[in-house]
Amino acid sequence: MSSSLVVSRRNRRTPYTDRVEACGVQDYSIVNHMLLPKSFNRSVEEDYWHLKTQVQLWDVSCQRQVELRGPDAGRLAQWMTPRDLSHMKVGQCFYAPLVDEAAGLLNDPVILMRAPNWFWFSIADADILLWAKGLALGMDLDVEVTEPDVSPLAVQGPRAEDLVALVFGEEVRSLRYFQFRELPFADRCLVVARSGYSKQGGFEIYLDDSSLGGLLWDTLWESGGVFDVAPGCPNLIERVEGGLLSYGNEMTRENNPFEINLDRFCRLDGKVDYVGRVALQKIAESGPSQRIRGIVFEGRPCPPCAAPWPITIDNKVVGQVTTAIWSPAFRKNIALGMVTKDHWTFGQAVDINLPDGETRRGKLCQLPLR
Amino acid sequence: MSSSLVVSRRNRRTPYTDRVEACGVQDYSIVNHMLLPKSFNRSVEEDYWHLKTQVQLWDVSCQRQVELRGPDAGRLAQWMTPRDLSHMKVGQCFYAPLVDEAAGLLNDPVILMRAPNWFWFSIADADILLWAKGLALGMDLDVEVTEPDVSPLAVQGPRAEDLVALVFGEEVRSLRYFQFRELPFADRCLVVARSGYSKQGGFEIYLDDSSLGGLLWDTLWESGGVFDVAPGCPNLIERVEGGLLSYGNEMTRENNPFEINLDRFCRLDGKVDYVGRVALQKIAESGPSQRIRGIVFEGRPCPPCAAPWPITIDNKVVGQVTTAIWSPAFRKNIALGMVTKDHWTFGQAVDINLPDGETRRGKLCQLPLR
Repeated sequence: MSSSLVVSRRNRRTPYTDRVEACGVQDYSIVNHMLLPKSFNRSVEEDYWHLKTQVQLWDVSCQRQVELRGPDAGRLAQWMTPRDLSHMKVGQCFYAPLVDEAAGLLNDPVILMRAPNWFWFSIADADILLWAKGLALGMDLDVEVTEPDVSPLAVQGPRAEDLVALVFGEEVRSLRYFQFRELPFADRCLVVARSGYSKQGGFEIYLDDSSLGGLLWDTLWESGGVFDVAPGCPNLIERVEGGLLSYGNEMTRENNPFEINLDRFCRLDGKVDYVGRVALQKIAESGPSQRIRGIVFEGRPCPPCAAPWPITIDNKVVGQVTTAIWSPAFRKNIALGMVTKDHWTFGQAVDINLPDGETRRGKLCQLPLR
Repeated sequence: MSSSLVVSRRNRRTPYTDRVEACGVQDYSIVNHMLLPKSFNRSVEEDYWHLKTQVQLWDVSCQRQVELRGPDAGRLAQWMTPRDLSHMKVGQCFYAPLVDEAAGLLNDPVILMRAPNWFWFSIADADILLWAKGLALGMDLDVEVTEPDVSPLAVQGPRAEDLVALVFGEEVRSLRYFQFRELPFADRCLVVARSGYSKQGGFEIYLDDSSLGGLLWDTLWESGGVFDVAPGCPNLIERVEGGLLSYGNEMTRENNPFEINLDRFCRLDGKVDYVGRVALQKIAESGPSQRIRGIVFEGRPCPPCAAPWPITIDNKVVGQVTTAIWSPAFRKNIALGMVTKDHWTFGQAVDINLPDGETRRGKLCQLPLR
């Protein structure tokens, strides 16, 4: 089993790893120094169809929480993102870019406001804990910055609401997208949010007691029997079709939020201050030089994209593909890529240059792909 | 091939990945969001004997550099570590613990002083870049904190000096341990240090131009023909025998530097100030409550240690094993583990509780194991 390659304490197991192994996990990726299941006993395509029709349990414990708590928690949270948090309410989730002083992206977490002085940043792959701690210490803020014992379990797919309602009650049906509520489970109250890294609908349960991991998994699993529940994980085909970006893939510190189309999450009028504001305002004046686009291209199924592939027009490089995979629904290859300003029009014909030297004809599309 | 599980741009390839693949790499681990080869076409034991007798090339590009450069570089470097850097000279490498405000370990890099206002922190697995940037920004320091295009290639083993001398000249023989010099290669000067993550002697070459990765690898490889050169990577048996610790395995934020026996690298008299000084002084007053020990234990080869195993005496938990492996030299299992104060005496008999319920009799030993 290829997961042998990640066996060490450094690659942390999760509260659900025992269950995931019992379900026959085949391999893992590592995100935030923690195991993220990558596949079970079926192909990405089979998993894709299941996710789009049924319900899955995903061990996304690797979405670690960076907790800011204390009198200056709100001040630090706002300092860390260009998104205006002033109107944020307890019980809301905000998708928020984090940038450095040069407006380079450091992460794109979902922020949860647990209380006025208490935030969770549910992060993608980077040690934002250290960034937040460094800022807090350097600025001498009165805030505790920690990684609490919180391990999200995602329930995703069109039957997710029915399943979560069986376990947490009918109340979950009234939760709006990116809202959360604390709901009882095993003598505790768990944060249950309508959210998740797919476009098929679903919930994320923020388990805050590792010792209950097995019980939470088993309870959902047993209730899920009537829905053909299966173990799952973020599905690459579904993610690309849905235009869901991935930190480290579609964006790095080299990119600013405009380039990944997050203009609406950047407050630029100076009424809110944050790290990178001046740099971001400057970039906004002339506009970004490149933007993320969907791409559809021809030919047989492409290999995985391990390093960016050049996008060219008449042999001139105009961008790069960052993620690509064959889509069984489109019967074409689909991709995400960064394209320069003069060429980013939807419908633009482009060439995708694969690592083996082959060139494929494609065109730029809106996200999500339709 | 199991390396398929890490194919995405997020798991960054290195300047040597093409060569490592041509050598038949079998799987990878991920360190600092970058590929670290974990094995080639032979067992850990075969690799162990080769490392102890010949010479190997290791792609340790994942030892990313955090560069501090500018008027406040020295001030920030010192602020980040309890080790006294005041007498550090250009051309020296210092092994240095990094801790947070509670004296919890954040990393254990090797610091290189390139110039009085220019440092590289060659880091273990954690985004110290973000910690350093956060501190610098919060404290409003005049320093550039970056991850430069620097990818170390290690040459390790008893024939390493002979091989490196063939490529970089006889001058390398006069380099003392943890010294570096800039030596010419392909119209550049590369930092060559006598250092590395083994006890077999060797060098690390800090390539600062990715485009030369293939050339550097090939030049060493071709010169190494006469020495039975082989591709390699940190060897778990050799590392445990040598008492080399691993961030994330033997130490986490839960540990302080005394617990991993770094007392000599903590300046406590108040003449040097740094993050965590007060917390560290307080811990020093009563002394640490646990310390890292070597452990040798009986029975057939143990499984890999994916999560800490309890160490007990008369069924009372007195510590935990963090890394363990069968040693062909000792004909016993060898391990690293944290043991509480009342029981950490060398020679202490202990029981190791394996995950399958089996208990093995062992004893505590000094590091490195002999």
